[in-house]
Order: sequence, then structure tokens, then C-alpha cells
Amino acid sequence: MYAYSHKNILDTLQFSKDDLNYLIEKTNRMNALHESGKAFGILHGKLLASLFFEASTRTRMSFEAAMERLGGRLISTVGFQFSSISKGETLYDTMKMIEAYCDIAVIRHPVEGSSRIAAGAVNIPVINAGDGAGQHPTQALLDLYTIVSEKGKIDGLNIAFIGDLKYGRTIHSLINLLRHYPVHLYLISPEELKLPDKYKKNLEGFPMTWEETTDIKAIWDADVAYVTRIQEERFPDHREYEKLKDIYKVNKELVLASKKDTTILHPLPRVNELSTDVDDLPNAAYFRQAKYGVVVRMALLCLSLGVNFD
Amino acid sequence: MYAYSHKNILDTLQFSKDDLNYLIEKTNRMNALHESGKAFGILHGKLLASLFFEASTRTRMSFEAAMERLGGRLISTVGFQFSSISKGETLYDTMKMIEAYCDIAVIRHPVEGSSRIAAGAVNIPVINAGDGAGQHPTQALLDLYTIVSEKGKIDGLNIAFIGDLKYGRTIHSLINLLRHYPVHLYLISPEELKLPDKYKKNLEGFPMTWEETTDIKAIWDADVAYVTRIQEERFPDHREYEKLKDIYKVNKELVLASKKDTTILHPLPRVNELSTDVDDLPNAAYFRQAKYGVVVRMALLCLSLGVNFD
Amino acid sequence: MYAYSHKNILDTLQFSKDDLNYLIEKTNRMNALHESGKAFGILHGKLLASLFFEASTRTRMSFEAAMERLGGRLISTVGFQFSSISKGETLYDTMKMIEAYCDIAVIRHPVEGSSRIAAGAVNIPVINAGDGAGQHPTQALLDLYTIVSEKGKIDGLNIAFIGDLKYGRTIHSLINLLRHYPVHLYLISPEELKLPDKYKKNLEGFPMTWEETTDIKAIWDADVAYVTRIQEERFPDHREYEKLKDIYKVNKELVLASKKDTTILHPLPRVNELSTDVDDLPNAAYFRQAKYGVVVRMALLCLSLGVNFD
Repeated sequence: MYAYSHKNILDTLQFSKDDLNYLIEKTNRMNALHESGKAFGILHGKLLASLFFEASTRTRMSFEAAMERLGGRLISTVGFQFSSISKGETLYDTMKMIEAYCDIAVIRHPVEGSSRIAAGAVNIPVINAGDGAGQHPTQALLDLYTIVSEKGKIDGLNIAFIGDLKYGRTIHSLINLLRHYPVHLYLISPEELKLPDKYKKNLEGFPMTWEETTDIKAIWDADVAYVTRIQEERFPDHREYEKLKDIYKVNKELVLASKKDTTILHPLPRVNELSTDVDDLPNAAYFRQAKYGVVVRMALLCLSLGVNFD
Repeated sequence: MYAYSHKNILDTLQFSKDDLNYLIEKTNRMNALHESGKAFGILHGKLLASLFFEASTRTRMSFEAAMERLGGRLISTVGFQFSSISKGETLYDTMKMIEAYCDIAVIRHPVEGSSRIAAGAVNIPVINAGDGAGQHPTQALLDLYTIVSEKGKIDGLNIAFIGDLKYGRTIHSLINLLRHYPVHLYLISPEELKLPDKYKKNLEGFPMTWEETTDIKAIWDADVAYVTRIQEERFPDHREYEKLKDIYKVNKELVLASKKDTTILHPLPRVNELSTDVDDLPNAAYFRQAKYGVVVRMALLCLSLGVNFD
Repeated sequence: MYAYSHKNILDTLQFSKDDLNYLIEKTNRMNALHESGKAFGILHGKLLASLFFEASTRTRMSFEAAMERLGGRLISTVGFQFSSISKGETLYDTMKMIEAYCDIAVIRHPVEGSSRIAAGAVNIPVINAGDGAGQHPTQALLDLYTIVSEKGKIDGLNIAFIGDLKYGRTIHSLINLLRHYPVHLYLISPEELKLPDKYKKNLEGFPMTWEETTDIKAIWDADVAYVTRIQEERFPDHREYEKLKDIYKVNKELVLASKKDTTILHPLPRVNELSTDVDDLPNAAYFRQAKYGVVVRMALLCLSLGVNFD
């Protein structure tokens, strides 16, 4: 018999297909509770440490809203305020302190793998809210939940990813979840920003299929188009960023030329790669994506804490 | 029949005299609830986004205290932590995210007019907590409430404004409220810092009268003296600031030479324009002003959210 | 008859031995309530101002966790966000604002004596969370509580202090509490970092005895060894810091050469003076110390607010 068993959320590779289906079902339940005003109080008396070693207002506020919406409590800190760390404290020691204070921790950190180190230090649950070039598993889970909520299914979808597939952590995380489903991916990027081989290895032996192209017109055949920002901060060479930053632009004209019901997603923030003239089309789901994110995180906080919400 | 109808608080010009009288009455009610320990819980389950794109500890803590005093919840962010904005996100997109997370937003922003843009982006209520050289409507409302609480009335009062009437946003906002009442203003400032003509236009056709003077002795005839700081950060030319910064000083000697019951107000922080030797006089109402501010904001949060507290 | 009477917590010198025994007893009670889930709600409706004029994540989060664990509410601000202060506001004026907003204030400030100034400005209770080279009384109280919890008693213990006894505020505060008990101190430091005479004066006429040494082997005879960091930020001359920073290193070998049950304490953060190979020994109590800190502060918040928790 299946039993969900993840206390820590560190990596998208940790989830089986059964896990994902279970999370989707539980998030549906959480969404219903939240919409009917019954979610507030589920985490009464629980205390979250919101630890953002680098600033990420969007993700931080989403987690903090999730905790507050459940009636839980939180203590929060951002980046440079980690004065102990500036005095030379290790992540291990910081986490031992947090364990003494709180029931659960959400951690954002600039160094890849740091959330695993954090989780290894303590007995309280740890949720990775993005660790450098590494994983951002809750973003991937909310993206998956957005797709199933908007399309009513996952199986059989054509899903296009557009933009920076080399540095785009969001995409690397999401395809690890989608691999479990019979979907087809169009990986649309310039040659310089193709999906690195190391990420492709995780996709072998799974029902998902994919093809690579540099042509944005591949979007025409997609049920879901996931647009991403070319992230200036990830490029070692700034000239390369300048060359590539405006290479794709998803705008109203392009969307209207695609399938009628292509769902447009974007992890936000956007810059020029997704035009604001798309906002008014029914296809635009990227603001709803932010809302799904809160209920996904509400469900995850409860599951990690072992608090039931049937 | 009169019905208060303001979901957003963006500008002092939005309020009719009926609105102001209604707000005073509701704030009296809120004050009574708060004093008797019955306000806590009124906003149970509601979530405020406290968005300070520029630091303003005094205003931020006042709003956050108001939300906490009502038993509501909040997520908060200050200035440079808006990492998405540093990545190029527009205020529109930021607000769409906030709408997905929260029930109401308070916004402080360095750019004039930005609170109106923020409100236009979303369906949740937006309260302007100061936007650059623009408006600071809740400060004006708390000033008005302080005057009526301290003096027991507004009609017939002589009210002196002393200091920087050119850049002083607080004053520009407050006179837009006072214009509805038969009061007389003494506008006391150096020539260089007179009330600009554009603000005078809003006063035409209203029962309020006013006269301008450079002589601080006009305070002698005032029932209320509203002292303001010469704000260094607003001056384009620093030499002008240096020339004018110490031009007026309201001290004990001056207050004792005035009417016996002249009420001294100040939006705080003060520097040299208001001497600490005034603090012990019964005339000094500026610390009580901070307390009135919390209950005014408690009332506004409830009214904007449509939560009753009769 | 004894009656505890401290509204403000400003200084370790304010406590009598009766006070300390009472605080230990009340913290035991609070700990039992917290462990059984009955502490949440005791400070329902109370509002704490968490005022950190300098960053101290560890202390701030400990106080904030304490308030949240009691079901209280808080508004928080850190350092550079004190925008009013950057505009020239005095601590007195800031505190008058805080008094208008909150029920109790915790203050961390870089200037010695500032917590006393803060407390003098207002009628709400003020707790000193460290003021420059001055006092850190709640750290000392949690250290004392850790000792009695770990050893089951205080009387008759040999307690070694190792490291920077000149600048170490933590030590200066703790010995003012220990002086009330018949304990013996080994003050282990290099000549340059000996306990200054001004702190020794407070110890005269009390049952505590002490001796000074430069030899770390004095730890062999200790029941409790309190290790401290050589704090780079306190040294006027950086060369002296470089010379002394690695002078003592408490590691597994040293601990195993000591008494079997020597309890190792450290206020954290640590750098090189306390080796991580000690962490797995049962002697290592420094992570439990952080946990004791929360319940000590829970008890103090209630006592200062006059809220009963028998």
C-alpha cells in the first residue's frame, strides 16, 4: 500500500509518481479547505523558521502567506541579517539553533546542496526554497499543480519550454516531475542555452518524450507553454547575456497563432521575454500560478509536519 | 442616504466631509473597542501585505501594530529586499503576486502616483502609506483625528502650520481634509518654503480660510500648532537646506507665550524644530498622535476589508 | 515575604539571589507548560516590539520564537531599517512611538547604557537584549538556567570560563549572577584578555570564589566549562586579535582528559575555539543552551508583562 513518507522537501528527484499524484490530491483538498475558510487554524501553535540566506521576496512571501493562512506562526530572516554567519558560523550550527526554536524550516541559500546539509543537521523538517544552481522543488510542484489545474490532466500534453534551459533551475526541477507522465516536451532555446546533458540523464527510462529546437514556432503545437526569463545573474560572461537576452519574445501575436487553448506559464518575475499584451488573454495563467503556489505550500507544510487535513 | 464607499485609500482628495465625519465616528468606536480589549480578533484570518518599497519604520510599525491589534496576520517586506524588482519586475506584476497571496495591501513607494498604479492592478484593497512627493492620506486622517480628539471639535479652530510647506507632504495632505471645515490656517514658513500654488487650488470653494506669514509669532493665536521638520532628503539643493533648517524653533518659551491650551502636533521624527523642553507641557500632543494613528489605521483596515465592527 | 518586582530587565546586577531562584522556578514551570503544549495562548493579544538597532539573528529569533510560542504577536525591525533614526531621531522619541504601539519592548543597541535610556522613556516594560559593551542579562539568565538544568544544582560547582574575559559581555553578565552562589570560578585567559578590575569589584562580599590562570588545563577540574569566542569586532587593534584568536581550542581530546561529566557551554556562534568533534559527546550542552534560552525568555516576557502562568 502506498504511504507518502517525505518529511523533507529537498529535491524533485525524491518524488515517485505515486507521491506526485498524492500531492496533487492533497493540494486539491487543501485548496477546497482554503476557499471555504477552513484552512486557518490547521497549524495552530506551529512555528516556521523562514530562512532566506539570499533575498527572494516572491518565494519568501509565498511560504509565509502559506503559514499564516494555516494559522501558524513564523520567525523570519533575510540575507545579510544573518549576523552570526558573518561572524563565521557554519550552516550546521545555525540549523542547530533553528531546531531549538522552531518546528519546521524553509531555507533559501545561494550554495547548491546547502538545503541537504541543513536537513542533515536537524530533526525538524526542512523545505528547500531554492539552493543556488541546484533545486527549487516547491516551484516545480506548484508548476505541476498549475498544469493539472488548468488543463484538467497531465497525460498526453505537449509542453513547450522556452528560454534559458541551461541555467533555468525552474525548468531543471519541473522536468524531473513531468518525466513520470506520458507527455511530450518541446525544449526551445538558442544553441548556447540548451538543456545540459547532466539533466537529460534523469529522463531516461521514463514515459516522457522530448525534442530540442531553436525555433519558437514549436510553441504553435503546445498545450502548455512555459516561458522563462534569461537570468542575467546566472551568466558567468555578461556579453553572452547581452547577446541572448532578447532572443525570444512571447507576445499576443504569437499566442494567437498557436492552439486556441495553449496555457501560458511563467515562474515570474518576467522582463522582456513575455509581453504584457498577453495578460488579458484567457491563455495567461501565470498570475493564477502564484495563487496555486500558496495552496501547494500550505499542503507541503502540513504534510512535512505530519499534521492531518483530510 | 450616506454610505461610505472607499475600498482604496489613495489620496486625501477622495474624501467628502461626510466621509471624514464617518471615519471620525468609526475611529471613536474602534478606539473604545481597543481600549476595552475587544478589537483583537476582528480581523481573524485576514492577511495584510505590508509593502515598504522605501523604509519608513514609524509608518510601517503603526500599520503592522494595527493589523496585529485586530488579530489579523501580515507578511512584510522592506525596500531592497524586493529582489524581483531588482530583476526588473514592474509594480503591476508585483501587485498581481500580492493579490494572489493576501487580502489587503499597504504600500509605501518612493514614486509619486505609484499607489494608484498598484490599486489599479488588483482587486484587493490598497492603502497608500506615502508615495514620494505625493500623498500620505492615513497620516492626514490620523492628524485630523488627533485634532478632534484633543480639542473636542474642529469647527472654528485656528490652526498654524510651521515649517516646510513646500515639500511637506504631511501638510499638503492634511489641508485637503481641513478644507471641509470652517477653520482658519496660519501658514508659517520662510518665503522659499511657502505652500506651492498647485496645492492652494484644491482649497478654493471650501469653508476653510488661510493666510501666509513668515512670522512664527502667528502661533500665539493658534488653537493647534502643527510643527514640521525641514526634510533634508526632499531638497534638490543642499545649500538651501543648510540655510533654512534652523529657521524656526518651537520651544517651551514660545509655547508658554501662546494661548494657554494651544495643542502642539508634529508628525515625527523631529530634529531641532521642536524642542524637547516642550515635551512635559500638557500642550504636547505629538506622542499621543502616534497612539491615535494605530486606532485610525485599525478602523481603515476594517473598513477597506468590509469587516464590520459596530 | 519575597515578591519578584522586576518590570524591566536591564542589567544582571538588578537581581538578588531570591530573584534568581524565583526565575529558575518559574522557568521550570514555563518549560513544563511549553513541553505539554499549554504555553501557547498565555500572551494572547499582547504585542511585542522587537527592536534590533544592530543585527543579532540568534538573539532576535530567540525572543521572537518565545513570543510566538506564547501566542503573542510582534512587530520587528532590524538596524538600518530604522529610517527615523537616520533622520536624526533620538532613542527617547523612538521609544515614545513604540510605547504608543506595543505592550513590551526588547531592545538590542550598539551603545552601552541605551537600554536604560529606553526604559526611562516609557511606561511599558523594556528588556535589554544586549547593549554594546554593556550587559546582556537574558543571555546570563539562560546560561544560569542551563547550568542548573544540566547539573541539577549550582552550589559547589567548579566553573571554568575560557577565552576572552576582557571584552566578553556574556561572561561579565553571567558572573554577576553566579556571585550569589558558593561556586568556584577558573578564569582562563591570556594575560591580554584577563577579566578587567571593574568587573571584579562587583564580586566582592559574595560567596563565589575565583582564580585566574592562563593554562587551559584548569578545565580538567571543572564541572562546567564555558567557552567563548574571541570576538574580532570588539578589538580596537586588529593585530592583537590576530595574535590571540587561536590561543585556546577546546576539542574532544581536551574534554576526554577532563572530568567525565564536565558540561561544555558556549553562547554561540563559535569559530575555532570549540571544535566540532565535541558535538557528539554527551558533555556538549551548547545546542540545548539555545533551547533553554527560549523558555527563559518566555518566562521573562510573561513576568515583565505581569501575566500569570502558575
